[in-house]
Amino acid sequence: MILKRWLVGDPLKTAQARHERLSKTIALPIFSSNAISSVAYGTEEILLVLVLAGTAAVAWSIPVSLAILFLVLVLTISYRQIIHEYPEGGGAYIVARTNLGENPALVAAAALMIDYVLTVAVSVAAGIAALTSAIPSLFVHREALGLIAIVFMVLVNLRGVRESGTFFAIPTYFAIGALGLLVTVGTLHSFSTPSVTPSPTNPEIPGKAMESLTLFLILRSFAAGCSAVTGMEVISNGVKAFRHPESKNAATTMIWMSVILASLFMGVSWMAYHYGILPKVDETIMSQLARLTFGTGVVYYTIQIATMALLVLAANSAFAGFPHLASILARDGFMPHQMATFGDRLVFSNGIIILGFFACLLLVIFQGDTHALIPLYAIGVFVSFTLSQSGMVKRWLVKKGAHWRKKLAINGIGAVTTGIATVIIASTKFMQGAWIVFLLVAILILIFQGIRSHYRAVSEQITLDRRGSRPPLPRRNIVVIPVSGVNRAVVRALDYARSRPGEIRAVYVDLDPEESAKVKIQWAQWGGGVNLIAISSPYRSVLGSLLEYVEEILEKEPNTWVTVVIPEILPARWWQSILHNQRALMLKAALLFKERVIITDVPFHLTR
Amino acid sequence: MILKRWLVGDPLKTAQARHERLSKTIALPIFSSNAISSVAYGTEEILLVLVLAGTAAVAWSIPVSLAILFLVLVLTISYRQIIHEYPEGGGAYIVARTNLGENPALVAAAALMIDYVLTVAVSVAAGIAALTSAIPSLFVHREALGLIAIVFMVLVNLRGVRESGTFFAIPTYFAIGALGLLVTVGTLHSFSTPSVTPSPTNPEIPGKAMESLTLFLILRSFAAGCSAVTGMEVISNGVKAFRHPESKNAATTMIWMSVILASLFMGVSWMAYHYGILPKVDETIMSQLARLTFGTGVVYYTIQIATMALLVLAANSAFAGFPHLASILARDGFMPHQMATFGDRLVFSNGIIILGFFACLLLVIFQGDTHALIPLYAIGVFVSFTLSQSGMVKRWLVKKGAHWRKKLAINGIGAVTTGIATVIIASTKFMQGAWIVFLLVAILILIFQGIRSHYRAVSEQITLDRRGSRPPLPRRNIVVIPVSGVNRAVVRALDYARSRPGEIRAVYVDLDPEESAKVKIQWAQWGGGVNLIAISSPYRSVLGSLLEYVEEILEKEPNTWVTVVIPEILPARWWQSILHNQRALMLKAALLFKERVIITDVPFHLTR
Repeated sequence: MILKRWLVGDPLKTAQARHERLSKTIALPIFSSNAISSVAYGTEEILLVLVLAGTAAVAWSIPVSLAILFLVLVLTISYRQIIHEYPEGGGAYIVARTNLGENPALVAAAALMIDYVLTVAVSVAAGIAALTSAIPSLFVHREALGLIAIVFMVLVNLRGVRESGTFFAIPTYFAIGALGLLVTVGTLHSFSTPSVTPSPTNPEIPGKAMESLTLFLILRSFAAGCSAVTGMEVISNGVKAFRHPESKNAATTMIWMSVILASLFMGVSWMAYHYGILPKVDETIMSQLARLTFGTGVVYYTIQIATMALLVLAANSAFAGFPHLASILARDGFMPHQMATFGDRLVFSNGIIILGFFACLLLVIFQGDTHALIPLYAIGVFVSFTLSQSGMVKRWLVKKGAHWRKKLAINGIGAVTTGIATVIIASTKFMQGAWIVFLLVAILILIFQGIRSHYRAVSEQITLDRRGSRPPLPRRNIVVIPVSGVNRAVVRALDYARSRPGEIRAVYVDLDPEESAKVKIQWAQWGGGVNLIAISSPYRSVLGSLLEYVEEILEKEPNTWVTVVIPEILPARWWQSILHNQRALMLKAALLFKERVIITDVPFHLTR
Repeated sequence: MILKRWLVGDPLKTAQARHERLSKTIALPIFSSNAISSVAYGTEEILLVLVLAGTAAVAWSIPVSLAILFLVLVLTISYRQIIHEYPEGGGAYIVARTNLGENPALVAAAALMIDYVLTVAVSVAAGIAALTSAIPSLFVHREALGLIAIVFMVLVNLRGVRESGTFFAIPTYFAIGALGLLVTVGTLHSFSTPSVTPSPTNPEIPGKAMESLTLFLILRSFAAGCSAVTGMEVISNGVKAFRHPESKNAATTMIWMSVILASLFMGVSWMAYHYGILPKVDETIMSQLARLTFGTGVVYYTIQIATMALLVLAANSAFAGFPHLASILARDGFMPHQMATFGDRLVFSNGIIILGFFACLLLVIFQGDTHALIPLYAIGVFVSFTLSQSGMVKRWLVKKGAHWRKKLAINGIGAVTTGIATVIIASTKFMQGAWIVFLLVAILILIFQGIRSHYRAVSEQITLDRRGSRPPLPRRNIVVIPVSGVNRAVVRALDYARSRPGEIRAVYVDLDPEESAKVKIQWAQWGGGVNLIAISSPYRSVLGSLLEYVEEILEKEPNTWVTVVIPEILPARWWQSILHNQRALMLKAALLFKERVIITDVPFHLTR
């Protein structure tokens, strides 16, 4: 408990929950770190696929990047419509549930939950890669560094990031500035230098093709590059957090974000192509570009630190999104109730811990390697993109309203474009790991449904009869007191029982005739007139014999409560309990599952 | 539970406990496997020390073995007197307690407990060494093999070895026969062959001395060889198990055992000396002797298997001794009560499991190496030997009786001899690990005393006043029902409470005003006239607010019981409980530690 207080801080009152409204300049960094940080690995993932067909194939990175640019454009326009239509926040789950029904909504929810976990794992892995590119000696420790980063984020988020606004704004602007400087200087410089054909000196990169340059390979590189648009949906979830007019401000911020993302991404792709940069195992493309442009000096290190900070903030954004989604699902009965409960720091503690756990698990399984995680990534995001856009299409068809044909066309293009991208991603990445995501989505949906059907069954069973007839109860009450010996604890329990109505039966389990005779004599003095029933126990199990006795009463007397009054001796210090039999505890646990048995615990506290 | 039944068998009735009396021919193998098995490593340990002073020094093994032979003689004569004096069984703890007082008895008990653990570890390690000498490819697996052997013994002993007599007799006689054959053939053969000076071909054995042949080294080799007399006390613990006349039969068996032990041990020492056998890392002396005498054939393998079987039975004997000693200590209040309770197979299950656990721990720490364990071994046995003999000396001085001077002289010689041996063992082995044993003895004694003082404190606190005044009890009773909502479970608990006397207060923790209003309306219909008290909870902790409310009552009303009636919803399947808040469980746990609070659990069982 003390450790917990120190780590996560004192509890906060409900009244302390602030509903801070964000200006556009503060909202931009908060909501865009996830999307913009994708620049750090998007281009690299495209090149990693293309280079399989030899160094000549990397020129295809430019058309692939342009295709992704088109995706950014389509997503920006179509998400602006969602922002205007759902000012309360329009996540894929909500849009799908309100327009498409329950099953598509659960698919969206499952896909999103998986992608939140992947966002943390991928962003942290990429952030650590930015660090180890600058300090190569840390490369062997990347897994441990990633785990430390995640644990740190879990703790920070359990405390609750109240002062999130400026706290997040500064490093994000700093990173955008640093990356902007790199892209601007690098691109301007590229116009005055001749283009470089990549000549691999690094033996990791094969000079000749390992695979031939097929359409499939190009689509695969497009699918890998789609990781660059992940996070674009974030603003649409958080419209409520903007200042009035919420939707308008959010839509404007969305455009700013897209412009920054698009220019940084295209700049990096262009520079990589122009300078003939190829991926390396232990250094990122971004690091190579920064080194080439500014040399290994202060500016280079600044860019690496800024990139890392941006990626960590991107990972951190999932710690707000995942628990929030889990709490919505919990309120709808698809996740355990506990996920919907605020912790004592006004955050959804359970969701934060679960996200941290699974992200750590992924990082360990994939050994902290961004490239190994990428095949799993993006698929969930694109499934939810497609479901959101399809939901909006359905909405305009049903609701119509002003300019509905134009709106339908925009979301229609969005749905088709993201649908095609989803099919490309799913088919090209399927064998490399996307199948795991599909399998997990299916399992998650089964879990969601199982949980809901359990809650429904519970609710049906505990709901009272509307017509007001009270459930019938047993009439009589037999009180059973297990007696282990004649002592203060037992006499206290007996006296408590005697002060209440009901037929009392003190029961003694006879293990040793000598001891038994002694107890009977003492009982005559202390038993207060209650009859002591001695039962034999051929197998020396006090617990078993008592349970049998209670069961016998239950069987013989169908219309009777059996109240078992347990005298429980509690040691003064917890560790002393290993010196005691724990019979009271085991008896309580066993009796709990018997119908018509009431357990009454009369504790007797030792003081030393 | 099913697994347990399958592994350890169905419970047995108390009445099934048999008090089988043993004939001398059956008692001999049962009680002597421990002592005789020491032959397998005794000589080897002597040589291992001497060889440090070069191969020439190993000739000293003969005088050292003769000194140990003298010890066997003294122990036999003096233990026969204990057998006659304690027909109920005269373990070191009992002899020390009745004659020397509590503290020496606790020293003996602690020393014995440690030595039981070591007996298991050393015997198993030596048994596995016999196996791996014959099958060298198993050498790397010796640790795992040892652990498997111990786990197997734990399971066998948890079942209870009722048919112990013949079950143990056959392999022990078989092993005595096999070792006897080896010693007889080998010794006879030695008279017709010239003595061999050891010329080490094995590079592990240094040709020249690493240490000089000092008196200290010879004493160290004597101390190492003392491991050969461990187990000689076993018969004196079990006199009760012999047929009438118990003491006479036990004393005769003691002589048989000593003769077998002495001749096998001297035979092995002589042969090793005569044939110039030196210790090897991966083959035991016994294996080398058997190979030399019979060649690597059927006879050789038979001898190895017999040796292993004997050692395993020796280890197994500790599984009877340790739990028995622990149960005696528990009855005297020095160990937890649970140690004195028969398990459902009529064995002291807790003691068996604890012994197995610590033996496994030792085996892992010392990597299954007999030689590494030996420095810890024997010291405990010799401490208890000395305490037994000193106890007898004191006894004769106090009690006197017929021939007391002669008896005093015999036990006096015993006490002095074992005392000297103890000092030698302790001083020569101290730095090699005997200090651990001394430290553990001290810690164990503190634990024994701590446990007893706890039990005494408990007993004082729960014992009723002799003069018969009943402890005063609170007069009033306030019944508190925590209400989470209006449902069948809550109504059931409420109706139970209403059927009993006492002022009822239904308490609802207000987290959400909307939900709260709904509950109040429903309560009006279902509350049966009981007032519903809504309490606010600024930190959203239902548990915390309820506890505070109960504490308030306790403070305001000093002469009142607070009975908390908890409506507990129990899921149909255990795993479903992760979907529920466990609030009832946590509330019960927290309330348990409050004075004057009675916890009454009204379970409501879901059926699906």
